[in-house]
Amino acid sequence: MSSHHIVRDKQEPALLIANGEGCDPELLGQLLEWSPFVVVLDHAIWRVFALDIKVDVLLGDFDREVDLDAVRARQYPIEIVHAPDQDKTDLEKGIELLIERGFPAVNIVWATGRRADHSITNMTNIVRYKDQIRIVMYDDYSKIFPLHQTFEKWYAKGTPISLIPVGTVEGIVTEGLKYNLYDEALVMGYRTGNSNEAAEDGFVRISARHGDLLIMECWD
Amino acid sequence: MSSHHIVRDKQEPALLIANGEGCDPELLGQLLEWSPFVVVLDHAIWRVFALDIKVDVLLGDFDREVDLDAVRARQYPIEIVHAPDQDKTDLEKGIELLIERGFPAVNIVWATGRRADHSITNMTNIVRYKDQIRIVMYDDYSKIFPLHQTFEKWYAKGTPISLIPVGTVEGIVTEGLKYNLYDEALVMGYRTGNSNEAAEDGFVRISARHGDLLIMECWD
Repeated sequence: MSSHHIVRDKQEPALLIANGEGCDPELLGQLLEWSPFVVVLDHAIWRVFALDIKVDVLLGDFDREVDLDAVRARQYPIEIVHAPDQDKTDLEKGIELLIERGFPAVNIVWATGRRADHSITNMTNIVRYKDQIRIVMYDDYSKIFPLHQTFEKWYAKGTPISLIPVGTVEGIVTEGLKYNLYDEALVMGYRTGNSNEAAEDGFVRISARHGDLLIMECWD
Repeated sequence: MSSHHIVRDKQEPALLIANGEGCDPELLGQLLEWSPFVVVLDHAIWRVFALDIKVDVLLGDFDREVDLDAVRARQYPIEIVHAPDQDKTDLEKGIELLIERGFPAVNIVWATGRRADHSITNMTNIVRYKDQIRIVMYDDYSKIFPLHQTFEKWYAKGTPISLIPVGTVEGIVTEGLKYNLYDEALVMGYRTGNSNEAAEDGFVRISARHGDLLIMECWD
Protein backbone atom coordinates (compact mmCIF):
# COMPACT_ATOMS: atom_id res chain seq x y z
CA MET A 1 0.00 0.00 0.00
CA SER A 2 1.38 3.43 -0.85
CA SER A 3 0.06 6.92 -1.23
CA HIS A 4 1.16 9.10 -4.11
CA HIS A 5 0.77 12.67 -2.89
CA ILE A 6 0.17 14.41 -6.16
CA VAL A 7 -3.01 16.30 -5.44
CA ARG A 8 -2.85 18.71 -2.53
CA ASP A 9 -5.72 21.08 -3.04
CA LYS A 10 -7.44 20.33 0.31
CA GLN A 11 -10.60 19.31 -1.48
CA GLU A 12 -10.22 15.71 -0.38
CA PRO A 13 -10.56 14.74 3.27
CA ALA A 14 -7.35 14.36 5.22
CA LEU A 15 -6.72 10.99 6.87
CA LEU A 16 -6.06 10.84 10.60
CA ILE A 17 -4.68 7.53 11.87
CA ALA A 18 -5.10 7.24 15.63
CA ASN A 19 -3.46 4.89 18.08
CA GLY A 20 -6.17 2.27 18.74
CA GLU A 21 -7.07 -1.01 17.11
CA GLY A 22 -6.00 -1.42 13.49
CA CYS A 23 -8.54 -1.88 10.71
CA ASP A 24 -8.75 -4.04 7.62
CA PRO A 25 -6.00 -2.91 5.19
CA GLU A 26 -8.68 -2.85 2.48
CA LEU A 27 -10.53 -0.06 4.29
CA LEU A 28 -7.30 1.85 4.76
CA GLY A 29 -6.50 1.38 1.09
CA GLN A 30 -9.83 2.88 0.06
CA LEU A 31 -9.31 5.91 2.27
CA LEU A 32 -5.79 6.38 0.85
CA GLU A 33 -7.00 6.11 -2.74
CA TRP A 34 -7.04 9.85 -3.37
CA SER A 35 -3.65 10.56 -1.79
CA PRO A 36 -4.90 12.39 1.23
CA PHE A 37 -2.82 14.39 3.67
CA VAL A 38 -1.96 11.79 6.33
CA VAL A 39 -1.60 12.58 10.04
CA VAL A 40 -0.51 9.81 12.39
CA LEU A 41 -0.81 9.89 16.18
CA ASP A 42 2.17 9.05 18.34
CA HIS A 43 2.97 5.35 18.72
CA ALA A 44 0.86 4.33 15.74
CA ILE A 45 3.70 5.56 13.52
CA TRP A 46 5.54 2.23 13.39
CA ARG A 47 2.39 0.27 12.61
CA VAL A 48 1.70 2.77 9.80
CA PHE A 49 5.25 2.57 8.41
CA ALA A 50 4.91 -1.23 8.41
CA LEU A 51 2.05 -0.77 5.93
CA ASP A 52 4.24 1.35 3.63
CA ILE A 53 2.08 4.42 4.02
CA LYS A 54 3.70 7.80 3.37
CA VAL A 55 3.04 10.07 6.35
CA ASP A 56 2.80 13.86 6.24
CA VAL A 57 2.61 14.66 9.95
CA LEU A 58 3.47 12.70 13.07
CA LEU A 59 1.74 14.28 16.08
CA GLY A 60 2.03 13.33 19.72
CA ASP A 61 3.14 14.25 23.18
CA PHE A 62 5.88 11.62 22.83
CA ASP A 63 5.85 11.06 26.60
CA ARG A 64 6.44 7.35 26.13
CA GLU A 65 9.68 7.21 24.20
CA VAL A 66 9.13 7.48 20.46
CA ASP A 67 12.55 7.55 18.83
CA LEU A 68 12.13 10.53 16.50
CA ASP A 69 15.56 10.04 14.93
CA ALA A 70 14.57 6.52 13.97
CA VAL A 71 11.31 7.91 12.54
CA ARG A 72 13.23 10.43 10.39
CA ALA A 73 15.65 7.71 9.32
CA ARG A 74 12.70 5.64 8.11
CA GLN A 75 10.97 8.47 6.23
CA TYR A 76 12.47 11.83 5.36
CA PRO A 77 11.15 14.47 5.20
CA ILE A 78 8.36 14.12 7.77
CA GLU A 79 6.79 16.92 9.78
CA ILE A 80 6.84 16.21 13.50
CA VAL A 81 4.41 18.15 15.70
CA HIS A 82 5.09 17.97 19.40
CA ALA A 83 1.76 18.52 21.20
CA PRO A 84 2.24 18.23 24.95
CA ASP A 85 -1.15 19.63 26.16
CA GLN A 86 -2.34 17.13 28.81
CA ASP A 87 -5.89 18.46 28.75
CA LYS A 88 -6.55 17.17 25.26
CA THR A 89 -6.31 13.74 23.71
CA ASP A 90 -4.00 13.22 20.76
CA LEU A 91 -7.06 12.72 18.60
CA GLU A 92 -8.40 16.16 19.53
CA LYS A 93 -5.00 17.72 18.83
CA GLY A 94 -4.90 16.02 15.43
CA ILE A 95 -8.35 17.28 14.49
CA GLU A 96 -7.49 20.80 15.63
CA LEU A 97 -4.30 20.78 13.56
CA LEU A 98 -6.33 19.93 10.46
CA ILE A 99 -8.87 22.66 11.23
CA GLU A 100 -6.04 25.20 11.62
CA ARG A 101 -4.60 24.16 8.27
CA GLY A 102 -7.92 24.65 6.52
CA PHE A 103 -8.97 21.12 5.75
CA PRO A 104 -12.73 20.90 5.16
CA ALA A 105 -12.98 17.23 6.11
CA VAL A 106 -11.16 14.37 7.80
CA ASN A 107 -11.56 10.61 7.84
CA ILE A 108 -10.40 8.95 11.05
CA VAL A 109 -9.33 5.33 11.54
CA TRP A 110 -7.85 3.27 14.39
CA ALA A 111 -9.74 5.37 16.96
CA THR A 112 -12.10 2.66 18.24
CA GLY A 113 -11.91 -0.88 19.62
CA ARG A 114 -9.89 -2.40 22.45
CA ARG A 115 -9.87 -0.06 25.50
CA ALA A 116 -13.44 1.07 26.19
CA ASP A 117 -12.38 4.37 27.75
CA HIS A 118 -10.40 5.53 24.72
CA SER A 119 -13.00 4.18 22.31
CA ILE A 120 -16.02 5.89 23.86
CA THR A 121 -14.10 9.14 24.37
CA ASN A 122 -12.89 9.20 20.77
CA MET A 123 -16.33 8.45 19.34
CA THR A 124 -18.11 11.09 21.37
CA ASN A 125 -15.49 13.87 21.37
CA ILE A 126 -15.84 14.41 17.63
CA VAL A 127 -19.15 16.20 18.18
CA ARG A 128 -17.41 19.32 19.49
CA TYR A 129 -15.86 19.94 16.06
CA LYS A 130 -18.99 19.37 13.99
CA ASP A 131 -19.31 23.04 12.96
CA GLN A 132 -15.64 23.35 12.00
CA ILE A 133 -14.76 20.25 9.96
CA ARG A 134 -16.62 17.28 8.50
CA ILE A 135 -15.55 14.18 10.42
CA VAL A 136 -16.17 10.55 9.57
CA MET A 137 -14.77 7.81 11.81
CA TYR A 138 -14.40 4.31 10.39
CA ASP A 139 -13.67 0.87 11.74
CA ASP A 140 -14.30 -2.61 10.36
CA TYR A 141 -17.90 -2.61 11.58
CA SER A 142 -18.89 1.03 11.72
CA LYS A 143 -19.05 4.41 10.04
CA ILE A 144 -19.64 7.16 12.59
CA PHE A 145 -20.28 10.87 12.02
CA PRO A 146 -21.90 13.75 13.86
CA LEU A 147 -25.15 15.23 12.61
CA HIS A 148 -24.52 18.72 11.25
CA GLN A 149 -27.63 20.67 10.24
CA THR A 150 -29.83 18.37 8.15
CA PHE A 151 -28.51 14.99 7.06
CA GLU A 152 -29.83 13.51 3.82
CA LYS A 153 -28.62 10.39 2.04
CA TRP A 154 -29.96 7.61 -0.15
CA TYR A 155 -29.93 4.16 1.41
CA ALA A 156 -30.98 0.71 0.32
CA LYS A 157 -33.92 -0.70 2.27
CA GLY A 158 -32.87 -2.34 5.53
CA THR A 159 -29.54 -0.53 5.88
CA PRO A 160 -28.86 -0.29 9.63
CA ILE A 161 -28.76 3.31 10.86
CA SER A 162 -28.37 4.08 14.54
CA LEU A 163 -28.93 7.45 16.18
CA ILE A 164 -26.75 7.82 19.25
CA PRO A 165 -27.29 10.93 21.38
CA VAL A 166 -24.20 12.30 23.11
CA GLY A 167 -26.06 13.45 26.20
CA THR A 168 -29.55 14.75 25.41
CA VAL A 169 -30.68 15.62 21.89
CA GLU A 170 -34.02 17.38 21.44
CA GLY A 171 -36.33 17.95 18.54
CA ILE A 172 -35.19 15.05 16.42
CA VAL A 173 -37.15 14.64 13.19
CA THR A 174 -36.50 11.76 10.80
CA GLU A 175 -37.93 10.61 7.49
CA GLY A 176 -37.35 7.32 5.71
CA LEU A 177 -36.48 5.23 8.78
CA LYS A 178 -38.35 2.15 9.95
CA TYR A 179 -38.92 3.83 13.32
CA ASN A 180 -39.20 7.55 12.59
CA LEU A 181 -38.94 10.26 15.21
CA TYR A 182 -41.33 13.21 15.21
CA ASP A 183 -39.82 16.09 17.16
CA GLU A 184 -38.67 13.70 19.86
CA ALA A 185 -35.77 13.55 22.30
CA LEU A 186 -33.13 10.87 22.71
CA VAL A 187 -31.14 10.60 25.92
CA MET A 188 -27.95 8.60 26.21
CA GLY A 189 -28.31 5.80 28.75
CA TYR A 190 -32.10 6.02 28.70
CA ARG A 191 -33.50 6.32 25.21
CA THR A 192 -31.29 5.80 22.18
CA GLY A 193 -32.05 5.15 18.54
CA ASN A 194 -29.93 2.03 18.29
CA SER A 195 -30.72 -0.46 15.51
CA ASN A 196 -33.01 1.60 13.35
CA GLU A 197 -32.88 1.08 9.57
CA ALA A 198 -33.86 2.52 6.20
CA ALA A 199 -37.55 1.73 5.64
CA GLU A 200 -37.32 1.59 1.83
CA ASP A 201 -34.85 2.17 -0.99
CA GLY A 202 -34.72 5.94 -0.83
CA PHE A 203 -33.68 9.02 1.05
CA VAL A 204 -33.29 9.18 4.79
CA ARG A 205 -33.45 12.62 6.40
CA ILE A 206 -32.38 13.41 9.96
CA SER A 207 -32.38 16.73 11.79
CA ALA A 208 -32.33 17.87 15.40
CA ARG A 209 -33.13 21.16 17.11
CA HIS A 210 -30.61 20.96 19.94
CA GLY A 211 -27.78 18.72 21.07
CA ASP A 212 -25.16 16.42 19.63
CA LEU A 213 -26.29 13.39 17.68
CA LEU A 214 -24.00 10.73 16.25
CA ILE A 215 -25.22 8.87 13.20
CA MET A 216 -23.79 5.36 12.87
CA GLU A 217 -23.93 2.98 9.93
CA CYS A 218 -22.87 -0.39 11.32
CA TRP A 219 -22.76 -3.98 10.10
CA ASP A 220 -21.87 -7.39 11.52
CA MET B 1 -14.74 -25.01 30.81
CA SER B 2 -17.77 -26.05 32.81
CA SER B 3 -19.89 -24.59 35.55
CA HIS B 4 -21.05 -26.72 38.43
CA HIS B 5 -24.23 -25.12 39.72
CA ILE B 6 -24.08 -26.19 43.30
CA VAL B 7 -24.48 -22.90 45.10
CA ARG B 8 -27.65 -20.98 44.28
CA ASP B 9 -28.11 -18.54 47.10
CA LYS B 10 -28.06 -15.40 44.94
CA GLN B 11 -25.12 -14.05 46.87
CA GLU B 12 -22.81 -14.31 43.89
CA PRO B 13 -23.29 -12.17 40.82
CA ALA B 14 -25.17 -13.72 37.93
CA LEU B 15 -23.36 -13.89 34.61
CA LEU B 16 -24.98 -12.35 31.54
CA ILE B 17 -23.42 -13.31 28.22
CA ALA B 18 -24.47 -10.90 25.47
CA ASN B 19 -24.25 -11.24 21.73
CA GLY B 20 -21.20 -9.12 20.82
CA GLU B 21 -17.52 -9.87 20.52
CA GLY B 22 -16.26 -12.85 22.50
CA CYS B 23 -13.67 -12.44 25.25
CA ASP B 24 -10.61 -14.37 26.37
CA PRO B 25 -11.81 -17.77 27.69
CA GLU B 26 -9.61 -17.14 30.73
CA LEU B 27 -11.75 -14.14 31.72
CA LEU B 28 -14.91 -16.16 31.20
CA GLY B 29 -13.44 -18.97 33.29
CA GLN B 30 -12.77 -16.59 36.19
CA LEU B 31 -16.32 -15.25 36.10
CA LEU B 32 -17.70 -18.81 36.03
CA GLU B 33 -15.53 -19.91 38.94
CA TRP B 34 -18.29 -19.58 41.55
CA SER B 35 -20.98 -21.31 39.48
CA PRO B 36 -23.09 -18.30 38.79
CA PHE B 37 -26.58 -18.28 37.32
CA VAL B 38 -25.90 -17.90 33.58
CA VAL B 39 -28.15 -15.96 31.20
CA VAL B 40 -27.31 -15.99 27.49
CA LEU B 41 -28.72 -13.60 24.90
CA ASP B 42 -30.20 -14.92 21.70
CA HIS B 43 -27.72 -16.00 19.02
CA ALA B 44 -24.81 -16.14 21.43
CA ILE B 45 -26.16 -19.48 22.63
CA TRP B 46 -24.25 -21.60 20.12
CA ARG B 47 -20.97 -19.83 20.83
CA VAL B 48 -21.57 -20.45 24.54
CA PHE B 49 -22.43 -24.12 24.07
CA ALA B 50 -19.23 -24.48 22.04
CA LEU B 51 -17.34 -23.50 25.22
CA ASP B 52 -19.16 -26.22 27.25
CA ILE B 53 -20.83 -23.71 29.53
CA LYS B 54 -24.01 -24.83 31.28
CA VAL B 55 -26.72 -22.21 30.66
CA ASP B 56 -29.63 -21.45 32.96
CA VAL B 57 -31.65 -19.06 30.80
CA LEU B 58 -31.66 -18.32 27.09
CA LEU B 59 -33.36 -14.96 26.46
CA GLY B 60 -34.14 -13.30 23.15
CA ASP B 61 -36.73 -12.11 20.74
CA PHE B 62 -35.69 -14.97 18.44
CA ASP B 63 -36.70 -12.93 15.40
CA ARG B 64 -33.78 -14.28 13.39
CA GLU B 65 -34.29 -18.04 13.44
CA VAL B 66 -32.82 -19.63 16.55
CA ASP B 67 -33.78 -23.31 16.46
CA LEU B 68 -35.07 -23.78 20.00
CA ASP B 69 -35.60 -27.53 19.55
CA ALA B 70 -31.92 -27.84 18.63
CA VAL B 71 -31.04 -25.78 21.71
CA ARG B 72 -33.07 -28.12 23.96
CA ALA B 73 -31.54 -31.15 22.27
CA ARG B 74 -28.10 -29.78 23.12
CA GLN B 75 -28.88 -28.97 26.76
CA TYR B 76 -31.92 -30.11 28.73
CA PRO B 77 -33.39 -28.67 30.83
CA ILE B 78 -32.88 -25.03 29.85
CA GLU B 79 -35.24 -22.16 30.58
CA ILE B 80 -36.16 -20.22 27.46
CA VAL B 81 -37.50 -16.68 27.90
CA HIS B 82 -39.12 -15.18 24.83
CA ALA B 83 -38.80 -11.39 25.11
CA PRO B 84 -40.25 -9.70 22.03
CA ASP B 85 -40.34 -6.06 23.27
CA GLN B 86 -38.82 -4.04 20.40
CA ASP B 87 -38.32 -0.96 22.59
CA LYS B 88 -35.62 -2.62 24.65
CA THR B 89 -32.34 -4.25 23.73
CA ASP B 90 -31.80 -7.88 24.69
CA LEU B 91 -29.19 -6.70 27.17
CA GLU B 92 -31.74 -4.51 28.95
CA LYS B 93 -34.23 -7.39 29.04
CA GLY B 94 -31.58 -9.68 30.49
CA ILE B 95 -30.68 -7.20 33.24
CA GLU B 96 -34.37 -6.65 34.07
CA LEU B 97 -34.95 -10.41 34.32
CA LEU B 98 -32.15 -10.66 36.87
CA ILE B 99 -33.53 -7.71 38.85
CA GLU B 100 -36.99 -9.34 38.91
CA ARG B 101 -35.49 -12.55 40.20
CA GLY B 102 -33.74 -10.80 43.05
CA PHE B 103 -30.11 -10.99 42.00
CA PRO B 104 -28.04 -8.31 43.78
CA ALA B 105 -25.34 -8.20 41.10
CA VAL B 106 -24.49 -9.20 37.56
CA ASN B 107 -21.29 -9.51 35.57
CA ILE B 108 -21.72 -8.90 31.84
CA VAL B 109 -19.46 -10.11 29.03
CA TRP B 110 -19.57 -10.05 25.21
CA ALA B 111 -21.43 -6.71 25.25
CA THR B 112 -18.69 -4.54 23.71
CA GLY B 113 -16.46 -4.53 20.64
CA ARG B 114 -17.24 -4.81 16.94
CA ARG B 115 -20.30 -2.68 16.02
CA ALA B 116 -19.91 0.77 17.56
CA ASP B 117 -23.67 1.36 17.87
CA HIS B 118 -24.29 -1.75 19.96
CA SER B 119 -21.11 -1.24 21.95
CA ILE B 120 -21.76 2.36 22.98
CA THR B 121 -25.43 1.65 23.69
CA ASN B 122 -24.62 -1.36 25.88
CA MET B 123 -21.93 0.48 27.81
CA THR B 124 -24.06 3.52 28.54
CA ASN B 125 -27.46 1.87 29.09
CA ILE B 126 -26.29 0.13 32.24
CA VAL B 127 -26.50 3.42 34.15
CA ARG B 128 -30.29 3.28 34.27
CA TYR B 129 -30.14 0.21 36.52
CA LYS B 130 -27.49 1.46 38.93
CA ASP B 131 -29.91 1.76 41.88
CA GLN B 132 -31.40 -1.70 41.31
CA ILE B 133 -28.50 -4.07 40.72
CA ARG B 134 -24.70 -3.91 40.81
CA ILE B 135 -23.42 -4.20 37.26
CA VAL B 136 -19.87 -4.79 36.06
CA MET B 137 -19.16 -5.13 32.34
CA TYR B 138 -15.95 -6.84 31.24
CA ASP B 139 -14.02 -7.24 28.05
CA ASP B 140 -10.39 -8.11 27.33
CA TYR B 141 -9.27 -4.50 27.82
CA SER B 142 -11.82 -3.00 30.18
CA LYS B 143 -13.82 -3.25 33.38
CA ILE B 144 -16.79 -0.86 33.31
CA PHE B 145 -19.28 -0.04 36.05
CA PRO B 146 -21.60 2.80 36.98
CA LEU B 147 -20.87 4.96 39.99
CA HIS B 148 -23.44 4.29 42.72
CA GLN B 149 -23.25 6.55 45.76
CA THR B 150 -19.60 6.75 46.84
CA PHE B 151 -17.04 4.50 45.21
CA GLU B 152 -14.00 3.50 47.24
CA LYS B 153 -11.33 0.98 46.29
CA TRP B 154 -7.63 0.36 46.87
CA TYR B 155 -5.47 0.63 43.75
CA ALA B 156 -1.79 0.28 43.01
CA LYS B 157 -0.08 3.52 41.95
CA GLY B 158 -0.51 4.25 38.26
CA THR B 159 -3.58 2.04 37.71
CA PRO B 160 -5.53 3.65 34.85
CA ILE B 161 -8.97 4.87 35.94
CA SER B 162 -11.20 6.77 33.54
CA LEU B 163 -14.31 8.72 34.48
CA ILE B 164 -16.78 8.75 31.61
CA PRO B 165 -19.89 10.92 32.03
CA VAL B 166 -23.03 9.63 30.33
CA GLY B 167 -24.35 13.07 29.46
CA THR B 168 -23.56 15.66 32.12
CA VAL B 169 -22.39 14.74 35.62
CA GLU B 170 -22.16 17.47 38.25
CA GLY B 171 -20.46 17.78 41.58
CA ILE B 172 -17.79 15.18 41.04
CA VAL B 173 -15.33 14.87 43.91
CA THR B 174 -12.35 12.52 43.79
CA GLU B 175 -9.49 11.61 46.09
CA GLY B 176 -6.42 9.58 45.31
CA LEU B 177 -6.29 10.26 41.56
CA LYS B 178 -3.44 11.91 39.69
CA TYR B 179 -5.86 14.57 38.39
CA ASN B 180 -8.46 15.01 41.14
CA LEU B 181 -11.80 16.74 40.67
CA TYR B 182 -13.11 19.15 43.27
CA ASP B 183 -16.88 19.52 42.89
CA GLU B 184 -16.51 19.72 39.13
CA ALA B 185 -18.62 18.72 36.14
CA LEU B 186 -17.77 16.36 33.30
CA VAL B 187 -19.69 16.53 30.04
CA MET B 188 -19.59 13.77 27.44
CA GLY B 189 -18.17 15.02 24.16
CA TYR B 190 -16.65 18.10 25.80
CA ARG B 191 -14.92 17.30 29.05
CA THR B 192 -14.30 13.72 30.11
CA GLY B 193 -12.02 12.16 32.69
CA ASN B 194 -10.33 9.80 30.27
CA SER B 195 -6.89 8.43 31.20
CA ASN B 196 -6.69 9.41 34.84
CA GLU B 197 -4.85 7.09 37.23
CA ALA B 198 -4.26 6.24 40.88
CA ALA B 199 -1.77 8.75 42.28
CA GLU B 200 -0.28 6.40 44.89
CA ASP B 201 -0.74 2.91 46.30
CA GLY B 202 -3.91 3.53 48.28
CA PHE B 203 -7.60 4.27 48.24
CA VAL B 204 -9.35 6.11 45.44
CA ARG B 205 -12.68 7.72 46.28
CA ILE B 206 -15.17 9.01 43.72
CA SER B 207 -18.57 10.60 44.25
CA ALA B 208 -20.95 12.78 42.26
CA ARG B 209 -23.92 14.93 43.19
CA HIS B 210 -25.97 14.47 40.04
CA GLY B 211 -25.86 12.44 36.83
CA ASP B 212 -24.57 9.12 35.56
CA LEU B 213 -20.87 8.43 35.73
CA LEU B 214 -19.18 5.33 34.36
CA ILE B 215 -15.93 4.27 36.00
CA MET B 216 -13.60 2.34 33.70
CA GLU B 217 -10.48 0.40 34.56
CA CYS B 218 -8.77 -0.26 31.23
CA TRP B 219 -5.43 -1.64 30.06
CA ASP B 220 -3.62 -2.15 26.77
